[in-house]
Amino acid sequence: MAVLGIDLGGTKLALAVFSTEGELLNKRTALIEKRKGKEVGKLIVEEINSLETHLGTNKIKSIGIAVPGISRQITGTVWAPNIPGWDDYPLLAEVKQKVPGTPLIIESDRACYISGELWKGNAQGCSNAIYMAVGTGIGAGILADGKILRGAHDIAGAIGWLALDRPYHKKYVGCGCFEYHASGDGIARVAREILEREDNYSGLLKNKHPDDITAEDVFIAYEENDEVANEVISISIEFWGMAVANLVSIFNPEKIILGGGVFGPAIKFLSAIKEEALKWGQPISMKQLTLESSKLGGDAGIFGAGFLAIQEMQNSQR
Amino acid sequence: MAVLGIDLGGTKLALAVFSTEGELLNKRTALIEKRKGKEVGKLIVEEINSLETHLGTNKIKSIGIAVPGISRQITGTVWAPNIPGWDDYPLLAEVKQKVPGTPLIIESDRACYISGELWKGNAQGCSNAIYMAVGTGIGAGILADGKILRGAHDIAGAIGWLALDRPYHKKYVGCGCFEYHASGDGIARVAREILEREDNYSGLLKNKHPDDITAEDVFIAYEENDEVANEVISISIEFWGMAVANLVSIFNPEKIILGGGVFGPAIKFLSAIKEEALKWGQPISMKQLTLESSKLGGDAGIFGAGFLAIQEMQNSQR
Repeated sequence: MAVLGIDLGGTKLALAVFSTEGELLNKRTALIEKRKGKEVGKLIVEEINSLETHLGTNKIKSIGIAVPGISRQITGTVWAPNIPGWDDYPLLAEVKQKVPGTPLIIESDRACYISGELWKGNAQGCSNAIYMAVGTGIGAGILADGKILRGAHDIAGAIGWLALDRPYHKKYVGCGCFEYHASGDGIARVAREILEREDNYSGLLKNKHPDDITAEDVFIAYEENDEVANEVISISIEFWGMAVANLVSIFNPEKIILGGGVFGPAIKFLSAIKEEALKWGQPISMKQLTLESSKLGGDAGIFGAGFLAIQEMQNSQR
Repeated sequence: MAVLGIDLGGTKLALAVFSTEGELLNKRTALIEKRKGKEVGKLIVEEINSLETHLGTNKIKSIGIAVPGISRQITGTVWAPNIPGWDDYPLLAEVKQKVPGTPLIIESDRACYISGELWKGNAQGCSNAIYMAVGTGIGAGILADGKILRGAHDIAGAIGWLALDRPYHKKYVGCGCFEYHASGDGIARVAREILEREDNYSGLLKNKHPDDITAEDVFIAYEENDEVANEVISISIEFWGMAVANLVSIFNPEKIILGGGVFGPAIKFLSAIKEEALKWGQPISMKQLTLESSKLGGDAGIFGAGFLAIQEMQNSQR
């Protein structure tokens, strides 16, 4: 008996077949390329069909899908800002039609990340744990007192919007203060801002047009002890530490797990982030915190979707 | 049939008898005065006894107690920073001994505030609502997806520690950045800091020695359009707005309720606080938020303790 976990990312779709014990039996990916709107829905359905053909029908007993945005539980629709046409996309109905009778659950990627870590990663055995996902954007999957937080309208965990540095600047519109400074895009943005005012700088980051600088460039320059990269990274560490501290003061969790594309390379700053957080957070709660990296890395989404698929199957059998 | 809700505050103990329908039948208060350690425990027990004598024995079917600090569920002990000797005070055992067989629950004051509003105040019918208590200190009672948050070690909701203004200053040690600036004590503190650098100021706040300035003085001076008071209040509004925004981005709640001694007089700034929060918070979640004052005011704690007493009684009957 197997379940299917699907992770819809910004550039690719990942599908994984799991045994109900959590063994990863089979994994495949498909590029999204320039698809938008219904074409993305169609790609998901095609990939499910093709997996079923490959495995033999009726092998997949339940399906979980992680989406990069909001999964609205009441309507079964999805808001995904990076997929054109997915403001309120009826993904649940569309997939249900192709696999009638198979339990199906759609969740936000961040809820899936923490669910994956809870099942087979670094949050195993936790009742209070948070997955802080820092990639192109920033979000958090939050397990509080044993339950994944949803909020009143499925938008809980939008920590990219954390206000961490007063006063407000108009440039934060559209992404929020924390994400503006400390996401993957934010790291590149802060580097560009510093370069604009550093007339005498002639380091590594001058080799590129400012608009083309990426977080990766900053991490590479940091390894060469580049002064601008050093400044950017110290700002990032400050923001990450403040965000960790705020989650600790609010939730008193056992663990915060740093994941996403940036952690990744930035995981080497884990102890500096903890040190920054220790200054700010509720001191007793901070002492009770373990801060660590994701165990599942890029597979956290498919694991989480697989775990939620199993839970959905169990719920549907009740 | 009646239950007893007790709210242990910084200066006084409030006791209220409720019908199980939530009618407040009887309320009394006792001053804590200079009591510390076991004397405070003794006062609580004496007040319970004296109420029982007054009402007749066996009238009170369950007791809830709100404490200004942490109620440790596993040990039944209480940490209350403002009561000398209550680092790990065995309040549950002490009260249980005097009322054997009566269901008894002890909770943090902030958990009681949101429970009270949920029962008979402005959070009725909510599944996601937060009580932001701003008094001498700052804390939050958080109802998330239908449950009051506890955290791994009962310290959830310590939002006085929110990091809202980088970089870190050593002066935040002991209370946290948000509480440093925007609690009742914080308002006075910020006023003193501004007065120190304003040599030419000769307004209302000069009438007192800086050390004696209170939040109340600042509110009074604000009514007279005092320049320093104006600056202090605009800083407070900024911090309150940022904190509201952060709670909204993280929890996506239906309501945030502003309470505690400061709201109170600061409730007139509610729309300015909402305006500030709107700049920072996740925009969809912000639109779904209602920001309002506490309905129960200073009685939120006894109502919450009463409501938890009823729940505890029902649990004990199962």
